[in-house]
Amino acid sequence: MPNVHVAIIGAGGVGKAFISQLAGYATRNPSASLATILISRSSKALVSRDYSPLNLNSWSQDLASAAATAPLAYPTEALEFLKAAPGPVILVDNTSDESLAKSYPLFLSNGIHIVTPNKKGFSSDIGLWKDIYAAAANGGNPKGGYVFHEATVGAGLPVLSTLKELVETGDKIEKIEGIFSGTMSFLFNSFAPLDGNNGGKGFAACVKEAQQLGYTEPDPRDDLNGLDVARKLTILARLSGLEVASPTSFPIQSLIPGPLESAKSADEFLEGLGAFDGDMTKIKEEAEAKGAVVRYVGSLNVETKEVKVGLQTFDKGSSIAGLKGSDNIISFYTERYGGNPLIVQGAGAGADVTAMGVLGDLIKVLQRLK
Amino acid sequence: MPNVHVAIIGAGGVGKAFISQLAGYATRNPSASLATILISRSSKALVSRDYSPLNLNSWSQDLASAAATAPLAYPTEALEFLKAAPGPVILVDNTSDESLAKSYPLFLSNGIHIVTPNKKGFSSDIGLWKDIYAAAANGGNPKGGYVFHEATVGAGLPVLSTLKELVETGDKIEKIEGIFSGTMSFLFNSFAPLDGNNGGKGFAACVKEAQQLGYTEPDPRDDLNGLDVARKLTILARLSGLEVASPTSFPIQSLIPGPLESAKSADEFLEGLGAFDGDMTKIKEEAEAKGAVVRYVGSLNVETKEVKVGLQTFDKGSSIAGLKGSDNIISFYTERYGGNPLIVQGAGAGADVTAMGVLGDLIKVLQRLK
Repeated sequence: MPNVHVAIIGAGGVGKAFISQLAGYATRNPSASLATILISRSSKALVSRDYSPLNLNSWSQDLASAAATAPLAYPTEALEFLKAAPGPVILVDNTSDESLAKSYPLFLSNGIHIVTPNKKGFSSDIGLWKDIYAAAANGGNPKGGYVFHEATVGAGLPVLSTLKELVETGDKIEKIEGIFSGTMSFLFNSFAPLDGNNGGKGFAACVKEAQQLGYTEPDPRDDLNGLDVARKLTILARLSGLEVASPTSFPIQSLIPGPLESAKSADEFLEGLGAFDGDMTKIKEEAEAKGAVVRYVGSLNVETKEVKVGLQTFDKGSSIAGLKGSDNIISFYTERYGGNPLIVQGAGAGADVTAMGVLGDLIKVLQRLK
Repeated sequence: MPNVHVAIIGAGGVGKAFISQLAGYATRNPSASLATILISRSSKALVSRDYSPLNLNSWSQDLASAAATAPLAYPTEALEFLKAAPGPVILVDNTSDESLAKSYPLFLSNGIHIVTPNKKGFSSDIGLWKDIYAAAANGGNPKGGYVFHEATVGAGLPVLSTLKELVETGDKIEKIEGIFSGTMSFLFNSFAPLDGNNGGKGFAACVKEAQQLGYTEPDPRDDLNGLDVARKLTILARLSGLEVASPTSFPIQSLIPGPLESAKSADEFLEGLGAFDGDMTKIKEEAEAKGAVVRYVGSLNVETKEVKVGLQTFDKGSSIAGLKGSDNIISFYTERYGGNPLIVQGAGAGADVTAMGVLGDLIKVLQRLK
C-alpha cells in the first residue's frame, strides 16, 4: 500500500490531542505508512508540498516558524492539493466550521476520506446529510471516500458504531434516550442530586459554578439553549431511519428564560438568571415528591417519529438518575434487547476522549483501504 | 467482487438465529453477493458442491431431506472444500467445540476468515491463542484470513470492539470489572436484591428457580463453577496485554460446595445445596450490614497483572449493584476515562443477541474485503 496521507484541519484542544494520539499510533504501527501532509489552523498552516511527512513532534513550533504559510483556500485550493497526493488521503476536520462541512460532498466524491467530530455536516439541513452520504463509499458511491463521525455523539463512546451495527444486523430500534451533554449532566447532578441535598443552591448558582469549573461554554447560553443536544439527536434519528429536516424541526426546551434571551453578555445573563430560580426549584421539588429527579435528556421514538429534547423526571432507581459527574448515558431500546436497553455510558466530552473517537474512525478507514 | 462464501457449522439456538439474521442481511444487501455453501450440524450437513447458494429459508427442512449428507470431516475434508471455493470464504463456527477451535490456525493460514461466538479457541491454552492470531490477517499474517469473536464476551454487546479501540488508539487499560454471566446476574439479583427483600428465599431455592426458568445450564454446576466467567476474563485479559496462560491459571471462586462436586446428577446436587444455604446467607447479610450487596464478578488489573473471578460486595449506589434481570455490565477503567469508567450494559446472553454479534463480525470481514 502506498503512503496514506493525513490532512488535519483544526489544531485547537481536540486537534492537539488528535495529533498527539496520531503520532503515537504511527509509531506503534509503522506498516500503516501514515504521512501527515497538512496541519492547518485558521490563520496559518503547514503544507507539505512534496507530500513528505510533516514532523508530528515539532508541528506546534513549526507553525510559529517561517515554515508556516497561509491556510489553503477551501475548498478549491485544498482539493487540488489533496487530489494530487500520490496515494489515499484522509481529511481530519477537527473544527466546528459549517462552511467546511458543506464541502464534504465535494471532497468525498473526489475519493478523499473524511473523519471528524464536527457535528455541522450531519445535523444541519437534511439536504447536506443526503449529499454527504450520496458522495461517500459507505453511502453507496463506489468511487467515493469513506466518511465516519463517531465523535459527533458521545465523543469516544461507541454510540454511532453500536447504533449502526444494530441497524445493519436487522434489529429494530424502538427508542433511544439519554443524557448527551456533559454540561447538562454536571449541571443537574449538582442542582438535583440523587440524595436531594445540594446545600440549598439555586439553579443560577449551579450554572455559575459549572461555568467557573469550565463545564460550560464561555457563554452558558450556548449549552442551555439545548441546540447541542438537538444536533446529537438529529444525527441519531437519521441513523435510525427518521428523516429529521433540521435540528430545530422538533421540540427543544430551552433553559434560557425568555426575557434573558436578549441579554447582552454572559455576565448580564447570569446576573438575571437568579430571578428565575423559583421555576426550576418548583420542577425539582415536584420530581422529588414523586421519588424522582429532573434531568435534561434527549429522546427519539422511531414508531411515533417523535424526537424531543428537554427536562424529564426519572425514578431514582433508573440508570439515568444514577449517572455521575459529567458523564453521558445512551440507552438503546430495540426489538432484540427488549425491556432492558443496551446502555453505553461514560465521559462524553473532553479533548482526549473526543480525539480518540476521531482516531478510531481513521483506523476504520485504514482497515478498509487494504 | 466475486461471491463471498459463507460456511456455517452449528445450527442450534444461536446457529438458527444467525441463519435467520443472515438471510435478512443478504436480502437487504444484494450487492454483498453472499452465498452460503455449507450448513452443518453434528450428524448431518448441507454441502453445496458446486458453490451455488443454499436456500436460507428452507435449510431446516432440507437438512431433514435426502439433500442432506454426512458432515464433512474436520479439518481436512472441510478445508479442501472451502479452499476450492471460487472467492473469499467466511467460516461461521456456531458451536462450542474445542476440537474445531484447534483447527482455526489451519483455516486462517489458508486465507479462510472466521467469525464465532465459540470461546474455546480464545480462552484455552495461550499457545492456541497465539497460533490463531499469528495465522490471521488481523494478527500480522498478510495472507491469512480475518478472525473476529465479539460474541465470546457479552454476546452482541460492543465489548471486545470497544476494548480493541481503546488499546489501538493508545489509551491505557487500568482495570476491567463486571458481571459477565447472565446466569450469575439473574441469580444474585434474585438472591440479594437491592432492597434486601427476596421473600426469604435461600440460595439453593434461587438456583432451582433460575434453572426452572431456563437461566442456567441444564446442570447448574456448569454455571456455578465460574469457568464460563473465567473464560471471558481470559479473553479480556489477553486483549488488554496480559499473557494469561489458561482460564484456570488465576483464582476462580466456585460456588459449588466441596462435598457436592462429586454429586452424581444435577438433581442430587440441587438436593444437597440447601444444606449450605447458611454460608451464602451469612455473606449476603454481612454485605447488607455495610449498605452493600454481594455479586459474582470478574475483574482484571493490568498493572498488578491480577485476574480473578468470584464474589465481591458493591455499594448499593454503584452501577454493578443497580443491574437488573440477567443483564451484563462491563466497566473499563482507563487512563483517558479517569475515575468514571466507560460502561457497556445490557443482555449478554440469548440466541438473538449472540447471533447479532456474530453477524456484526461477518459484516466487519465484508468491509475489509473490498
